[in-house]
Amino acid sequence: MGRIGVWLVGARGSVATTAIAGAAAVRAGAAPPTGCVSELPDFADAGLPAWSDLVFGGHDVVDTPLVKRVEQLVHGGVIPARLADLVWTDLTVAEGEIRSGASGDPARFAADITAFRRRNRIDRVVVVNVASTEPPVRPHPAHQHLSDVDRALDTLPPSSLYAYAAMRAGCAYVDFTPSTGAWLPALDELSHVMGVPYTGRDGKTGETLLRSVLAPMFARRALSVLSWSGTNLLGGGDGANLADPGPAASKNAAKQRVLEGELGHPVDGRVHIDHVPALGDWKTAWDHVLFEGFLGTRMTLQVTWQGCDSALAAPLVLDLARFMATAETPGQVPELAFFFKDPLGVGPHGLMAQYDVLRDWARR
Amino acid sequence: MGRIGVWLVGARGSVATTAIAGAAAVRAGAAPPTGCVSELPDFADAGLPAWSDLVFGGHDVVDTPLVKRVEQLVHGGVIPARLADLVWTDLTVAEGEIRSGASGDPARFAADITAFRRRNRIDRVVVVNVASTEPPVRPHPAHQHLSDVDRALDTLPPSSLYAYAAMRAGCAYVDFTPSTGAWLPALDELSHVMGVPYTGRDGKTGETLLRSVLAPMFARRALSVLSWSGTNLLGGGDGANLADPGPAASKNAAKQRVLEGELGHPVDGRVHIDHVPALGDWKTAWDHVLFEGFLGTRMTLQVTWQGCDSALAAPLVLDLARFMATAETPGQVPELAFFFKDPLGVGPHGLMAQYDVLRDWARR
Amino acid sequence: MGRIGVWLVGARGSVATTAIAGAAAVRAGAAPPTGCVSELPDFADAGLPAWSDLVFGGHDVVDTPLVKRVEQLVHGGVIPARLADLVWTDLTVAEGEIRSGASGDPARFAADITAFRRRNRIDRVVVVNVASTEPPVRPHPAHQHLSDVDRALDTLPPSSLYAYAAMRAGCAYVDFTPSTGAWLPALDELSHVMGVPYTGRDGKTGETLLRSVLAPMFARRALSVLSWSGTNLLGGGDGANLADPGPAASKNAAKQRVLEGELGHPVDGRVHIDHVPALGDWKTAWDHVLFEGFLGTRMTLQVTWQGCDSALAAPLVLDLARFMATAETPGQVPELAFFFKDPLGVGPHGLMAQYDVLRDWARR
Amino acid sequence: MGRIGVWLVGARGSVATTAIAGAAAVRAGAAPPTGCVSELPDFADAGLPAWSDLVFGGHDVVDTPLVKRVEQLVHGGVIPARLADLVWTDLTVAEGEIRSGASGDPARFAADITAFRRRNRIDRVVVVNVASTEPPVRPHPAHQHLSDVDRALDTLPPSSLYAYAAMRAGCAYVDFTPSTGAWLPALDELSHVMGVPYTGRDGKTGETLLRSVLAPMFARRALSVLSWSGTNLLGGGDGANLADPGPAASKNAAKQRVLEGELGHPVDGRVHIDHVPALGDWKTAWDHVLFEGFLGTRMTLQVTWQGCDSALAAPLVLDLARFMATAETPGQVPELAFFFKDPLGVGPHGLMAQYDVLRDWARR
Repeated sequence: MGRIGVWLVGARGSVATTAIAGAAAVRAGAAPPTGCVSELPDFADAGLPAWSDLVFGGHDVVDTPLVKRVEQLVHGGVIPARLADLVWTDLTVAEGEIRSGASGDPARFAADITAFRRRNRIDRVVVVNVASTEPPVRPHPAHQHLSDVDRALDTLPPSSLYAYAAMRAGCAYVDFTPSTGAWLPALDELSHVMGVPYTGRDGKTGETLLRSVLAPMFARRALSVLSWSGTNLLGGGDGANLADPGPAASKNAAKQRVLEGELGHPVDGRVHIDHVPALGDWKTAWDHVLFEGFLGTRMTLQVTWQGCDSALAAPLVLDLARFMATAETPGQVPELAFFFKDPLGVGPHGLMAQYDVLRDWARR
Repeated sequence: MGRIGVWLVGARGSVATTAIAGAAAVRAGAAPPTGCVSELPDFADAGLPAWSDLVFGGHDVVDTPLVKRVEQLVHGGVIPARLADLVWTDLTVAEGEIRSGASGDPARFAADITAFRRRNRIDRVVVVNVASTEPPVRPHPAHQHLSDVDRALDTLPPSSLYAYAAMRAGCAYVDFTPSTGAWLPALDELSHVMGVPYTGRDGKTGETLLRSVLAPMFARRALSVLSWSGTNLLGGGDGANLADPGPAASKNAAKQRVLEGELGHPVDGRVHIDHVPALGDWKTAWDHVLFEGFLGTRMTLQVTWQGCDSALAAPLVLDLARFMATAETPGQVPELAFFFKDPLGVGPHGLMAQYDVLRDWARR
Repeated sequence: MGRIGVWLVGARGSVATTAIAGAAAVRAGAAPPTGCVSELPDFADAGLPAWSDLVFGGHDVVDTPLVKRVEQLVHGGVIPARLADLVWTDLTVAEGEIRSGASGDPARFAADITAFRRRNRIDRVVVVNVASTEPPVRPHPAHQHLSDVDRALDTLPPSSLYAYAAMRAGCAYVDFTPSTGAWLPALDELSHVMGVPYTGRDGKTGETLLRSVLAPMFARRALSVLSWSGTNLLGGGDGANLADPGPAASKNAAKQRVLEGELGHPVDGRVHIDHVPALGDWKTAWDHVLFEGFLGTRMTLQVTWQGCDSALAAPLVLDLARFMATAETPGQVPELAFFFKDPLGVGPHGLMAQYDVLRDWARR
Repeated sequence: MGRIGVWLVGARGSVATTAIAGAAAVRAGAAPPTGCVSELPDFADAGLPAWSDLVFGGHDVVDTPLVKRVEQLVHGGVIPARLADLVWTDLTVAEGEIRSGASGDPARFAADITAFRRRNRIDRVVVVNVASTEPPVRPHPAHQHLSDVDRALDTLPPSSLYAYAAMRAGCAYVDFTPSTGAWLPALDELSHVMGVPYTGRDGKTGETLLRSVLAPMFARRALSVLSWSGTNLLGGGDGANLADPGPAASKNAAKQRVLEGELGHPVDGRVHIDHVPALGDWKTAWDHVLFEGFLGTRMTLQVTWQGCDSALAAPLVLDLARFMATAETPGQVPELAFFFKDPLGVGPHGLMAQYDVLRDWARR
């Protein structure tokens, strides 16, 4: 496999910056690939692109230089200070490949990606959406068919415009956020027309990751879950977006689907998403599970997850780029459900079963 | 399949009493079989004995009547008051099948079990050890070979005397505790000589259950676990036993083996077992996991499990009796590792993988 | 001091039933007065009424007999089964003193209370509102002055109608809920006209109790609280009411006032109240505090409180009846702020300081 | 008040380094005095020394330069990188005032302190022990009387040698650790002979701080605490020392004394101290409290405290130096019990009551 382009929508955000800087550090041997699933022994023979074959670029609507963003991430405890100097060259190279996303014009977006590919002699480009979460989109009749959507591009939310542009440019597309992105019938149609794969959505980096192993535990032990409540405290920009009722509702629906999928019935309990700016790049999730055992005895499980969102998400973004670079079949790639809260495909919701699907797919 | 005897060593203990009362309640349709793995759809065609085919008996060194024990368990919130009256007849029948374990004489034990089998026209008897945990046993040369152990029965701890007696009586044997039980080379030899299966050990009902799904999550996500610490607060009699340094050491070793088996390396961190008498039948486990993500970021997971030991253990005891009643091969049955902290066999430590093994075995 | 009447608004609710049954058990020497502040040595000489001097009655809109309610509370683990029989006589006596609250007519309410007082030769009656929480009330101009409110009684919410009736009947009044109750200028005026004391509001039994000792700890240690987030999971009827946005908003405002009062500045963070019916009489509160120490280091405190609402509230209701029976001054009694989330008077928010105020007042 | 010397035993440790660097940052206006109790408005008129009057020096047995230690603390997230450069000059000055503690000779220690005082024209020196915790010391008859101890100095542990030297040099002495320090009858005698004050011991920075506000809450609410269990996970050097059974026993005894002092009876439950090296300067404490409310209902409180030990301790060290600089009376100063786990004096164990004592003393 030749050079692989990783085109990040939201290229100056925390996740993208951590991914770019981290890939440089791993390539230089200055940091181990901790958190990179694609580095597990199970995938040693999967023909994944080498770290040195990844080339980064992307779109963003802000223009804070990557070097400045890395400084902020050092300050926030996400990136170690000692790595910041080390990756300076790579950041500068990536900086030169970032284009403004302000136009909102998919033709321009596609042209940017195509130029990136040619300029860097890249074989395949994987476009990954790591921009801020959008509010949910109302269904629009033009989103059903490609022929309609082509004439109604201005009805698409930004994430879908990028998905459209990526596909038109012949690139694989990954939704790492809960935004609409490629999840419209018209864009699925486009992916088949263009012969490109896409996958998503909403990277599973905390509460839902835990739920995807804990719910199967209750199921396999025949314990009856009576309620499953959760509170998420998020700092950072995405905290502000997700705490809005709109995105929160969409995120919560995905989280409850995981439970229902594994437990086989709807589960009582709400999920709250609070924006706590002082948390910075960190997030805390508390889950409370009330369950019933033999003879109706009530018991509880509580879980607290304290994680750094960018440090959890960035290696998965790199994994997804590497795996998608090998995807051969057009349309949705449900075998990557392991990475997502809301894969929306047919398949298991339990993490272990999803892993087995991924492993088998990678060995195909 | 005809009638199945469930012979409980420690028949008047909380777990045994809950199992006997609970089986009666389930048989009467007064309680659903919550917590019974054997009732999952995956095992519908496994040819397991019906609830109405189970006959209970056992040994114990104390003589508090089962009816009195049920009252205590009602008071402790383990058994609902409304069920106590309902199961009175079944308790009385089981009461008539409990024999004193005070003699410590395996010939007498075997004779008790054989008489139980004949009296009740039972096809197979499964002996399950749910007595209090013993201190670890020092290795003794006579425990290596059956020919030696036959002449040195007085060197065996009680749990092993029961295992010996069970096998000599031609019964399947299950160790639900961390005691030595059948886990001596001489007794493995005996199981082959007598053509009986055995399995164990130490039912997985709390902290280790969680570890068996959480450790694989870290492994599959390539996250690096730096430390895994745990504190267990146990009431009841077993709390007192397990808080002793001896049994605690043996239990801790098993808990850490689960982590090491899944994570592929030894993990820093201690496990404490404290006896808190006021907790009664309840237990609380707190686990703290420090792990490293991408670029060395440190994150934590904390878990608190608050469970009723008898309500968690009793349905598994019934499951094990039902599954072992169908075991055809002499010697250890490693396919039941799903139920145990410390199966000591070859096989996966992750709960999901253990479940798949169990399901495939049951379908054989 | 002679006989003291305790007139409970919501007399068939969980809190009232537990208070009536519990007072009977304490009087009979069958249970210690655990959770009763008035029994601490500091109040031994405060001239409080004896347990045997308390006479119970009240209003309710439902008609489930108290004996039935006690059965439900036994089933829910609030009242031990062994006490249920013991208090049967006392429940029957109280049952005879409960009147329907369905009329909504304060004249009728006052007449009921007066008849109760005469029939039982009671010296003083303390009316305590333990009914379900009402939605917040919109300000109404008639609520400013007694002369106006007398002609606009139909604008008052039920809790205020009861407060009006209690005062008109010459009784002390206590708001144990966050409902409006006596907290209107017109009713404060009435309390002075009638020469009766009142106090409240919203008994402090969980999260706010903790906040009232933890917030002063941060303040005295000069640690800077950056955010204080909370999630409350409540079963029972009040869970359903409080999870409604209206009551929740009122409750949250009170909870945040405690923090602001102690910390000296508004504190970031939301409080959620979720209704989880399967929790029954139980509640769980999780609080997450992010604070800054020396040189800006960020640290966290997390607290989980798992309590039985009725068992926490009932002894405080009895305390308040006993303390209010000795109150001599008309109008609000701010010295009882120790018991309330939202005392709305001048005074400290910290629990220890509130206790000192209470102790000094009781010794006056 | 003139210049005040702060002589730190263990001057190159994390706490000392953070105190020196932090005082410099506060003096420069580069950081607020968060966590400094002495800066609360209550103490504005207490005549405490100004930040600019503090001069630092000390003893240590290691020789890693302070500048290097600050780098390590920046790496560990204790000191912000931006402050490191800023305080370089102050660190260099303090570096010049650190002497080797390797001799173990109290005469030499006293001479070092005296020279420091003269060289810097200091009015008063406060010696604060922030060295690693020592194992508990066996009682020795010579430690009863000053006349005996003068001839048996080699029987004293290092912390007591420093206390002896401090007092002989006419300095106030503070034990911030649980080591023996001044807590021998002979050294109390010496403090009176020399007319110097001393205080301690064992700074209250986490679990015990919480216990000192939570235990009074249970007491004032008449709730009956059945058990109080705790697990402390400590990184850093002190974690290794404290996890040893000897120091742990001494620390646990102090922690349980706080509970017993407030609750009025011994409390069931153990305290564990585990060394988890990967935690670095951080510590996590989990406490589980089982308590009984009205009618025997069992409820629980759980608390998790995640703090940076140096960031919690350093401002208290500065507080203690400032307060002790104003102490006029020889012998133990029990009024500073607010700061300590184990003040060993007569007085309240509750934090709020201790604060009131401190405030009144400072206003004297």
